[in-house]
Amino acid sequence: MRCQLAKLFTLHFSTLVVTPTCSITRCKLEAAMSDFRIRDLQPEDCRELVNMIKELAEFEGLPEQVKITEETLRRDGFGDRPFYHCLIAEVRNKDSQDGPWLTVGYAMYFYSYGTWVGRMIYLEDLYIKPQYRGKGIGTSMMTKVAQIGVENECQRMQWVVLNWNQGAIDFYKKHDSIDLTSDEKWHLFRMEREELRKFATLHDQTVVKGC
Amino acid sequence: MRCQLAKLFTLHFSTLVVTPTCSITRCKLEAAMSDFRIRDLQPEDCRELVNMIKELAEFEGLPEQVKITEETLRRDGFGDRPFYHCLIAEVRNKDSQDGPWLTVGYAMYFYSYGTWVGRMIYLEDLYIKPQYRGKGIGTSMMTKVAQIGVENECQRMQWVVLNWNQGAIDFYKKHDSIDLTSDEKWHLFRMEREELRKFATLHDQTVVKGC
Repeated sequence: MRCQLAKLFTLHFSTLVVTPTCSITRCKLEAAMSDFRIRDLQPEDCRELVNMIKELAEFEGLPEQVKITEETLRRDGFGDRPFYHCLIAEVRNKDSQDGPWLTVGYAMYFYSYGTWVGRMIYLEDLYIKPQYRGKGIGTSMMTKVAQIGVENECQRMQWVVLNWNQGAIDFYKKHDSIDLTSDEKWHLFRMEREELRKFATLHDQTVVKGC
Repeated sequence: MRCQLAKLFTLHFSTLVVTPTCSITRCKLEAAMSDFRIRDLQPEDCRELVNMIKELAEFEGLPEQVKITEETLRRDGFGDRPFYHCLIAEVRNKDSQDGPWLTVGYAMYFYSYGTWVGRMIYLEDLYIKPQYRGKGIGTSMMTKVAQIGVENECQRMQWVVLNWNQGAIDFYKKHDSIDLTSDEKWHLFRMEREELRKFATLHDQTVVKGC
């Protein structure tokens, strides 16, 4: 399926704060669907969210890396101190104006911070199911995340993309994004859980007093 | 100055949550200083923090990129929903056991999130002033961040490093870190404030109702 939004497939980013938690954004579609809307994730969406996360990882050729569960997403996305925020895209068929909204994509983000500029917003994932691409839903979702960033005084939006995803890269560059890896030579490093645990015991650190 | 910790210079990472806010970790130094300690950032440290942020940017060859102010750091690092967390390293000279502690470094981190594994901790910056390197302070700071990550059930620690900082890269690899840019071809992308604001207006999105 040709779709303009295939280029938005592998946004794979990293964000937190004053998210409007009760807003729904609705947009008109010119095609098969009457309209779509964007709303905040609710706990009951987490099952479908896991499915979509797996679909995206499949596209990225790294399906074995998905370890997350519905329970973890429920635990971490809600309450006073959510570890992430997520938007859900929904459509309703023309033929069933009164039918239920179908979940067709998600955009996960959180607030990050840069010592050079302060608040940033990090787009961890943006995914639209294949049959709903090319309608502007993905662009609309990414735009919404950008709006949330601007509203919360974020100075930058960041994300990562696989270097073979030329469609996505072209889209980002068209909107004046910078490839920091190519331009400034930043490489992303990671320590996995077991190595992190091992590293954490490298020094015996004793807490000596409160402050 | 030869120093083992030059290799930790350009940790340039990205994190948030249940940080112990009142602990001080003290470690013994074998050399000129009697000991050092690691504690959480306090609002009154922000002036010195800005200075150290500038010193690190200078080392990285990108001093013009530092726009942050003491006021911004005070606004964003404290309160119910801090945008970042930061550790401060301090030393006291042998000759003045009762003298004040001197600030010699910082480690800024926040909590990020990955759709594949869940909670992650992101190390935005790790910096030790040149004259205090080679004593284990930087390693100790990074270890402390790793401990905070483990305690908060983070599945990974991530950060970025400039590809010419071979000393740092060797250190990370020695501790079984993965270079995701080289190994999996992830490129870090960014949209700066003005481009973000422009992108945020790409679609006219109307909030239609609460939920």
